[in-house]
Amino acid sequence: MTKVKELNIALLGLGTVGKGLVNLLNENKDEILNKHNAKINIVKVYERNADKLEKFGMDRALFTDDMQTIYDDPSVDIVVELLGRIHPSKEFIEGALKAKKNVVTANKDLICMHGGELLKVAKQNGVTMLYEASCLGAVPAINTLKNNFLGDEIKSIKGIFNGTTNYMLTKMTQEGLSYEDCLKQAQELGYAESDPTNDVEGIDAAYKLCILSRFAFGLDAQFDDISKKGITKITSQDIEIAGRLGYTIKLLAIAKCNNQKLEMRVNPVLVSNEHQLSKINGAFNACTVEGNYSDEITLIGRGAGSYPTASAVANDIMNFAHKMGDVGQRTLKKAKIEKDGQMKFYIRLSILDKAGVLAVIAKTFGDNKISIESAIQDKNDNPEVKSLIIVTHSTSSLNMNKALDKISKADVVQSVDSVLEVLG
Amino acid sequence: MTKVKELNIALLGLGTVGKGLVNLLNENKDEILNKHNAKINIVKVYERNADKLEKFGMDRALFTDDMQTIYDDPSVDIVVELLGRIHPSKEFIEGALKAKKNVVTANKDLICMHGGELLKVAKQNGVTMLYEASCLGAVPAINTLKNNFLGDEIKSIKGIFNGTTNYMLTKMTQEGLSYEDCLKQAQELGYAESDPTNDVEGIDAAYKLCILSRFAFGLDAQFDDISKKGITKITSQDIEIAGRLGYTIKLLAIAKCNNQKLEMRVNPVLVSNEHQLSKINGAFNACTVEGNYSDEITLIGRGAGSYPTASAVANDIMNFAHKMGDVGQRTLKKAKIEKDGQMKFYIRLSILDKAGVLAVIAKTFGDNKISIESAIQDKNDNPEVKSLIIVTHSTSSLNMNKALDKISKADVVQSVDSVLEVLG
Repeated sequence: MTKVKELNIALLGLGTVGKGLVNLLNENKDEILNKHNAKINIVKVYERNADKLEKFGMDRALFTDDMQTIYDDPSVDIVVELLGRIHPSKEFIEGALKAKKNVVTANKDLICMHGGELLKVAKQNGVTMLYEASCLGAVPAINTLKNNFLGDEIKSIKGIFNGTTNYMLTKMTQEGLSYEDCLKQAQELGYAESDPTNDVEGIDAAYKLCILSRFAFGLDAQFDDISKKGITKITSQDIEIAGRLGYTIKLLAIAKCNNQKLEMRVNPVLVSNEHQLSKINGAFNACTVEGNYSDEITLIGRGAGSYPTASAVANDIMNFAHKMGDVGQRTLKKAKIEKDGQMKFYIRLSILDKAGVLAVIAKTFGDNKISIESAIQDKNDNPEVKSLIIVTHSTSSLNMNKALDKISKADVVQSVDSVLEVLG
Repeated sequence: MTKVKELNIALLGLGTVGKGLVNLLNENKDEILNKHNAKINIVKVYERNADKLEKFGMDRALFTDDMQTIYDDPSVDIVVELLGRIHPSKEFIEGALKAKKNVVTANKDLICMHGGELLKVAKQNGVTMLYEASCLGAVPAINTLKNNFLGDEIKSIKGIFNGTTNYMLTKMTQEGLSYEDCLKQAQELGYAESDPTNDVEGIDAAYKLCILSRFAFGLDAQFDDISKKGITKITSQDIEIAGRLGYTIKLLAIAKCNNQKLEMRVNPVLVSNEHQLSKINGAFNACTVEGNYSDEITLIGRGAGSYPTASAVANDIMNFAHKMGDVGQRTLKKAKIEKDGQMKFYIRLSILDKAGVLAVIAKTFGDNKISIESAIQDKNDNPEVKSLIIVTHSTSSLNMNKALDKISKADVVQSVDSVLEVLG
């Protein structure tokens, strides 16, 4: 085993994502050491006051409210900016890059508006800035565009880049609610902010479209070149008619490139129910990339939230760990095999149509520690018998085998017709 | 601009994927030069006879049926193995690696069974073997696991790894067909082979699960450790009952890791209709990766076929181009902006309930070169007027603006209530 690589982080901002990252680095410490032979230490936390750290169970000694102490600290390898907004994040990142610190940020507004400028500063100083978490949370949209489709001509990216509006449109579609009622609900649940403009007018989605277009097409897409139309005018009537015609209304961010000419918009779209993007419901995000040979590839996942965003930030950090040298190559370890899977089961039996049959079967399951979620009788092709369908709670597959062995020999059971796993 | 990087390829096998790759490298030549400052040349094609090349419009001079000429050719940078099967592909790849050629392969059986061994030979010879195309065609499953979730503990991968069986199960579900009828149909359409064992018994999916598990968990997953159950016993009855209970039956490949213990299986599963994997229809493939912080991320796309597989092979080739040095960094070019998007439209108008109204509106669209796909009258909240819903064929958005400007001023039109894009 080569020497463990230690990486020191200065964290700017102990908000939702910052706390998620601290939790991740704690909880997955062993995993990171095991898999990457690396140790990630948080050595400074920039915040307004030290109480915030203490309340969260962190050492007050990590606190600073002076960026200069971070720039000047030679032990800091990476500055992780999770403050959000453009100022002072921009100045802090510039300062960090000039102090030759690598930077990880989740700041979409900033990267959309000033990404090119900051990347130039990074290059001049021989360091790097990564920002996977700026787009679609845990969905690795940037990395996917960076590392794939390299031989393809990318024709378009299209996606659901805003979870709040997708949650609202899903509610409007499934429950027939009005825009206003949905917005109120989303605000109560904390999905929408009190001023929802950025979400409902397509601005948030446009930030991400701008960033992803740069990776997809290698063109310097600009925010102002994106035409934006939100969901505020969408009515239940349009949703209902669209449904009748075989479509679902979604707020899509779309960028197409044809002969080096770029076309970018965020607007509500009637998406054919055959298309993958019509099936993305609730607060999920999705991105469909279309290459001229790959055809459409769609990525789906949680586009926001403390943990998914922290996951993307941590991935950028680990990428630095790998670039910085001798962290372990993920050499394969010998696998221990688990033969006893835990899962839910669906079982279909042909049983005699007699009183007490279910009791016999239920007892056998119970004796083998298997708990039944539902049992339904159904007709059978053979009039002498009935079908019994049982769905279990999650259980040991070895126990299930034992139970089925016994059940198949019971007088009241004619045959075990199906045994299938159940997911969700 | 730095010097253009030239990369020379020896192609083994001019079958479906081989031809797709040749087409891709021809068609995307300019794109590759533009984006990567690289030129990819096919300098040798290994086949049984030269006629195959000529019939496909390739130069006979590239033909060889002697691997030694490839090993001995110092101009060959990469050997691309697209022969399939284990022998003689294994020996050919070993030979290439020992001759210090990098290797790209799409050979899932081989990588599943002998990947570790071949990677060792590659390492000993200071070269690399890439095999993104061995799993899920154009879906970048391997790269995604390689480059993402690095800070996460990956709990599971689950997916639809075989397009043939997913096509069959989709047909059985949507049309109530029996397994036998579906198999026949799939065979007639060329989706299933005359001996369908590898597909319908879950063997093909197990190869891919084995390969992906190694990347997901860093453990040396072995094919024999995967329990395999196919779809041959799935009945219309089970599919129908599952539907009633809110599930769709899918053949899932599942690997879970808990405390370094690996649990792997391919089997039919009742997937909750809320879960993304229940919504993957037809010949598509999908892979859901679950990290302890990222939550579930799902990738969807075409898992087989000439072009999608060629796309994945080309991506590996371009990765070598990048590793081999001074190919252009994808520096951003100035974007020319296309203001006139081409798209289908949904338009809802409030119109007077008079004869000849549709003619007036249709003429205005026609004058602006907009062709109508469907027009439907609908009731309106206001009893004096009707709603008219129009869906157009793909058209210029500038023309649409002109037409709408005119239509909104027409006597017979009370208001233009909705104008939305349509996808699909």
